[in-house]
Amino acid sequence: MKAEIPFSKDINLAFKNDPPGQWLSVLPKGCIRLSSGYPEPALVPSEELKSAVVHLLDKEKDLPLQYIGSPKIPELKEIIRKRLAARDVRVSDEELLVTSGACQAIDLVARVLLDDEALVALESPTYMEALEVFRNYTERFMDVPVDEKGLQTEVFEEMLKGRKEQGLPLPRILYVIPTSQNPTGTTMSQERREHVLALAEEYGFFILEDDAYGELGFENNPRLIKSLDKQNRVLHIGSFSKVVAPGMRIGWVAGAEELITTLNWFKKDLHHPFSQSTMAAFLESIDFDGRLKLLSAAYRSKCAVMIKALEEFLPPSVSWYTPEGGYFVWVKVAGIDTVELLPKALAAGVSFVPGKYFFLNPEEGTEFLRLSFSYAGEEEIIQGIRLLGEVVQNTMALK
Amino acid sequence: MKAEIPFSKDINLAFKNDPPGQWLSVLPKGCIRLSSGYPEPALVPSEELKSAVVHLLDKEKDLPLQYIGSPKIPELKEIIRKRLAARDVRVSDEELLVTSGACQAIDLVARVLLDDEALVALESPTYMEALEVFRNYTERFMDVPVDEKGLQTEVFEEMLKGRKEQGLPLPRILYVIPTSQNPTGTTMSQERREHVLALAEEYGFFILEDDAYGELGFENNPRLIKSLDKQNRVLHIGSFSKVVAPGMRIGWVAGAEELITTLNWFKKDLHHPFSQSTMAAFLESIDFDGRLKLLSAAYRSKCAVMIKALEEFLPPSVSWYTPEGGYFVWVKVAGIDTVELLPKALAAGVSFVPGKYFFLNPEEGTEFLRLSFSYAGEEEIIQGIRLLGEVVQNTMALK
Repeated sequence: MKAEIPFSKDINLAFKNDPPGQWLSVLPKGCIRLSSGYPEPALVPSEELKSAVVHLLDKEKDLPLQYIGSPKIPELKEIIRKRLAARDVRVSDEELLVTSGACQAIDLVARVLLDDEALVALESPTYMEALEVFRNYTERFMDVPVDEKGLQTEVFEEMLKGRKEQGLPLPRILYVIPTSQNPTGTTMSQERREHVLALAEEYGFFILEDDAYGELGFENNPRLIKSLDKQNRVLHIGSFSKVVAPGMRIGWVAGAEELITTLNWFKKDLHHPFSQSTMAAFLESIDFDGRLKLLSAAYRSKCAVMIKALEEFLPPSVSWYTPEGGYFVWVKVAGIDTVELLPKALAAGVSFVPGKYFFLNPEEGTEFLRLSFSYAGEEEIIQGIRLLGEVVQNTMALK
Repeated sequence: MKAEIPFSKDINLAFKNDPPGQWLSVLPKGCIRLSSGYPEPALVPSEELKSAVVHLLDKEKDLPLQYIGSPKIPELKEIIRKRLAARDVRVSDEELLVTSGACQAIDLVARVLLDDEALVALESPTYMEALEVFRNYTERFMDVPVDEKGLQTEVFEEMLKGRKEQGLPLPRILYVIPTSQNPTGTTMSQERREHVLALAEEYGFFILEDDAYGELGFENNPRLIKSLDKQNRVLHIGSFSKVVAPGMRIGWVAGAEELITTLNWFKKDLHHPFSQSTMAAFLESIDFDGRLKLLSAAYRSKCAVMIKALEEFLPPSVSWYTPEGGYFVWVKVAGIDTVELLPKALAAGVSFVPGKYFFLNPEEGTEFLRLSFSYAGEEEIIQGIRLLGEVVQNTMALK
């Protein structure tokens, strides 16, 4: 006899049973990985992290391996606070929580601010993992279109106005990736940043600003929405995943003290002393601003290689946004279903993520795909786009 | 103007504002730490972990620092599965989830099985962190007394029978630490383990078996309740915190596949590749059964030293359970309020945890305190208990 499990909530099984990573986490051998938002192996500082952990354990012995006690844990918070201050975001120790990556920060905010009734506004398309998190808490969404200047705040304002006039519920939070958005690679203009903050104040919602790529601008890094925030309407989320190493699982969230305190109550995996202490020791051992410059230059070069290859190998009906930073190029292949295209691409030896995973309504993503220039080397990128071009041309020829 | 925060649930502020660790995490300088359930620094394998991480990064380069990809991550699961199988718990890969310590496992189970209406049965007293987790989800509890043979299942059965007859809701889960319980140090008899499982089957609840101390028995390790479980009524929770290092934050939960899959959807901090890979590399480099023997012998000796000191330095009105394993001694100081005793003890140079934090109703814990023999060295334990004895004698003399 099997016991029936008394789940406390309905789970969106249709969505859960088709996770984006199902066949992309393990690729066919030799396949060029343009699907994953991973840093390039050569840009992950494994030697420096090794030195950092050796020095750390030599000096502190068991401290980073206990529940608490390593002086490196408060030092890491201090480093994050100083880096935020340099970007005009001044927060106290109580207004900052270190998390297990940005994803845990998003999840904690969702747990503390959302319930079944809550309406969540988000960019369309948006980060698929965030969509998955929000879907654990509510089924009520409001999706706002994105163009080459990011979230279309003018459209958003009309939507909000309409809802208010009709007496419909207003969003409790807006989740937005203002800089080098995932998946579109677009960056919100300064005007739109100011506009969306004014909307938050007028319509009473909170902005969850996901800044995972905010220091990887190719030319410059735009102002954080949080830096314009006078009313503590913005929860700023950051991460070391894209600029150091995702496997360390270190991110953070900064916002109103009352909210941060509450998030901390729900963060029951404690503070990952080993990982956080190692990160602090690493950051103290390097020139981090120099590292960011090096990373920006490397990803800018890789992005340029990908764009040039797209121009060379893809037919003229295919279009994309040209990114100003980050990891991704968002591509529209008019007339082709990218879910059907994927197995052919994998067979040819290149991977991408079909667009449908980034939309609330998967239908809207049919003709889109996300490419990542972060992981593959430049030669691989050229070869991968050449293969993708062939598969697209062949598919078009069959129509 | 300050924005009002739309919290999705009421938070038990009275409880949150008096957390047990508030003054115990930072002790007065030189104070002997008998409060914390930390492993003794000399028993934390910092040298071996350092070697493991160096070998890991030399061999795998960026892999343990990426989101996924290190072969060590599935290896860690395999090690845990094999160790469980050796204890008569056979689970598939899909029935096991590696978590950020036991605490995250408890939290995930609470998130997936509890709602405002859910009744939680637990030992009285019980692990204070678990109490804190459950209080994030429900205010409905049923506390079952503990004696020297652990949870009093006969009393529990009467309580369940009474509730059923009166048409009252039955518990959805029972949280229990059957071996070397925190805080009482007691271990459930085999009869009671079988009895509680029969009750779960009869009354339709799930058993959350927290086995944090289950391999630190001084003479032997009792059978896991999970090993007797025919209906998948038991969720088994384990951890490397007490036998390797808590700062690595690695625990696990094993149970019905459907439930484990759902827990995984809510575990949004991903898989801590750096920490998990390091743990796997460490475990593969040592004789873990030999290590467990060494730890059991060390803690047995420390416990014996503490019991002897209690007999020597505490007045005859003070009583305790003699542990058969684990980290803790549970002490009753009849007629003394241990919350009032604590500042005096700290001033004298020794710490403990007042009993009230381990009870749903703090009043019940007034005369109790928890001592830990895990962290302090043997000489410190003797000195700490001598100081505690003096403080208790002085307090009694004032009455």
